Amino acid sequence: MARIVVKFGGTSVADIDRIKDAALRIQAEAKGGNQVVAVVSAMAGVTNQMVALTDQMGALFDAREYDAIVSTGEQSNAGLMALALQTLGVQARSWLGWQIPIRTDGVHGKARITGIETEELERRLNTGEVAVVAGFQGIGPDGRITTLGRGGSDLTAVALAGALNAERCDIYTDVDGIYTSDPRVVPKARKLDHVTYDEMLEMASLGSKVLQTRSVELAMNHGVRIQVRSAFSGAPGTFVVNEDEIVEQQIVSGISDSKDDAKITLLRVADRPGVAAGIFGPLAEAAINVDMIVQNVSEDGKTDLTFTVGKSDLKAAAGLLKENQADIGYEELISDPDVVKVSVVGVGMRSHAGVAQKMFQTLADEGINIQVITTSEIKVSVLVAGKFGEQAVRALHTAYGLDVE
Amino acid sequence: MARIVVKFGGTSVADIDRIKDAALRIQAEAKGGNQVVAVVSAMAGVTNQMVALTDQMGALFDAREYDAIVSTGEQSNAGLMALALQTLGVQARSWLGWQIPIRTDGVHGKARITGIETEELERRLNTGEVAVVAGFQGIGPDGRITTLGRGGSDLTAVALAGALNAERCDIYTDVDGIYTSDPRVVPKARKLDHVTYDEMLEMASLGSKVLQTRSVELAMNHGVRIQVRSAFSGAPGTFVVNEDEIVEQQIVSGISDSKDDAKITLLRVADRPGVAAGIFGPLAEAAINVDMIVQNVSEDGKTDLTFTVGKSDLKAAAGLLKENQADIGYEELISDPDVVKVSVVGVGMRSHAGVAQKMFQTLADEGINIQVITTSEIKVSVLVAGKFGEQAVRALHTAYGLDVE
Repeated sequence: MARIVVKFGGTSVADIDRIKDAALRIQAEAKGGNQVVAVVSAMAGVTNQMVALTDQMGALFDAREYDAIVSTGEQSNAGLMALALQTLGVQARSWLGWQIPIRTDGVHGKARITGIETEELERRLNTGEVAVVAGFQGIGPDGRITTLGRGGSDLTAVALAGALNAERCDIYTDVDGIYTSDPRVVPKARKLDHVTYDEMLEMASLGSKVLQTRSVELAMNHGVRIQVRSAFSGAPGTFVVNEDEIVEQQIVSGISDSKDDAKITLLRVADRPGVAAGIFGPLAEAAINVDMIVQNVSEDGKTDLTFTVGKSDLKAAAGLLKENQADIGYEELISDPDVVKVSVVGVGMRSHAGVAQKMFQTLADEGINIQVITTSEIKVSVLVAGKFGEQAVRALHTAYGLDVE
Repeated sequence: MARIVVKFGGTSVADIDRIKDAALRIQAEAKGGNQVVAVVSAMAGVTNQMVALTDQMGALFDAREYDAIVSTGEQSNAGLMALALQTLGVQARSWLGWQIPIRTDGVHGKARITGIETEELERRLNTGEVAVVAGFQGIGPDGRITTLGRGGSDLTAVALAGALNAERCDIYTDVDGIYTSDPRVVPKARKLDHVTYDEMLEMASLGSKVLQTRSVELAMNHGVRIQVRSAFSGAPGTFVVNEDEIVEQQIVSGISDSKDDAKITLLRVADRPGVAAGIFGPLAEAAINVDMIVQNVSEDGKTDLTFTVGKSDLKAAAGLLKENQADIGYEELISDPDVVKVSVVGVGMRSHAGVAQKMFQTLADEGINIQVITTSEIKVSVLVAGKFGEQAVRALHTAYGLDVE
């Protein structure tokens, strides 16, 4: 008998019929002799409706009230799922964040889970009762409802799986797993059976919307085995696991592209100590995240500096840098929102040389100019002009032998 | 400086604009130097939507899940109202039932309030913060959300007013007060400035939908002064108060009619001890409420017995009585759903003779036959044929001098 956590996203519980379908999957797990914790999201669209109501209320924003409002979608869906299970003859009850309780810090709207008291939950799981848990929510030190930010129901599921030592955490969603690349861009993309936490983290941070970074980090820290799978087919999905669980590791697991970045280049910056701090300090203060940073070799005490920020931050970043032009001491600012970051990800590249070289050669053969390069232990990313993004991804997918037969 | 409770019903907070309007009324009370507790219902229709979702889930019905689901409408509205107040510069926060807490018994779906811990609420009221309380909900001994049944937000408001020793409890609704009769039936109906708890109780139990019986009982028991008033006009409404607050008491305060009853007559019932128990026992077991009961003088050891039940219970009641015909020992059952109960209500009739006689004379002058009569200390009710209902109410309204000039 295993203990498992299953999580159903908004499209998987978008209406009464889908909730009933999801209940059948939960019933099957329970009948298989498993102890089941089912984490449910709000019906797709409901949270956005609630956010829209909140926005209409005026300019002032109290995140504590926001949390009380937007958490209602998961609350009602948890109740509805418990009823659906009872109708199938499955013993079940709903749990709200404050009832378990799932304790969080006080950062309303984007709280972090600080602890889960599982005693009563486990007692009832041991009686064979399915626990239906409202995702996305907890209770803060102020005794008020907190929400965990976007992707929060995944966090709830992974955190519960960790706290309950669950055998695995199944994330039911509207895709059937993690692919070597975005199937809309690469028709020959292949579903992966396994992917490591590290690879998933790199892919998530590159814009893959299947699992949010925080959930993967949490799973990695607590050794929670995640399975990303389809709520509609029931076929096995992709396991996100520790590296040592994967017997035959591909060198490269996937090719990602992200269109969320914009490029800023500062020309002829004075190359002296403290200049980087002078540039990035004001951006950090304005909570503008800087990603890739490249500095050319200095010439005549002047250097060119290129970096990327989120597309939505481009205007603010450029404004700040112009305000501080005299202090920083650069001659010209060039910004370009029309860029794509293409990345090759794979834990195998740690032990295999030549992965980066193959990337550069492939892009050169395609006549695609590389604007910026950054590397991590398991990833090589390049920035290319927007128009070359999809071509680059497809060429690399073929070059690394990832195409489906 | 006074402490007041204001309550806004579903139509008064039906959308963002109405919530903002209601917030202006709350702001005015707060600016007037009052400590304000604002109880809010769900947006009109939202609770019914939630109930409909629950119904679609299947035949099984777990009232604990029902409560978790249907209480979400008040939860989100409390948050929205707090935001609306903050936007107006009024310090405010939302409170859910479990946060205060408002403790109830464990009868989910129709719980009774057993206690309210007001310490933290009062501490914050004393700082000038408006408390926005989600109506209709509490927390049961099982630590789960309970709801208080229909009209539950009124109960929340009155119970809080009692626990906080509030100066008054304003119930904002879509009518501007309590009338001497239903203005749709009696065009000359007059708004009352004051009405006593007892009168209001009789009127509420007669089908007046403005205030539920339980709220009035609670107000009477705790001496809470209620004002029923319009959310849309802001004019003074009707105060529901103790008898001794009313200086010049009308003998008759109002004429009500109720179309919710149906009549059952059992002909030639054996008139022996235990026969009433034999009739009403099975009905009580089936939770069928019996209202007016009249038994004629016995003749030849046989009697006729007439009583009323709710219209929706008529079929079940008649079925039960037919099943038990042999045991009870009656010859014929006649049922008639087409009846109206017309009542004259007024605390003044305690000290004034002739009130009932005037009623009977008026109806006789109109040629309306009285089928059943019952009386209480402050009420005389008669059952008449459905077609005479409105005529009877209008004639009595005039006869007792209630018509507006």
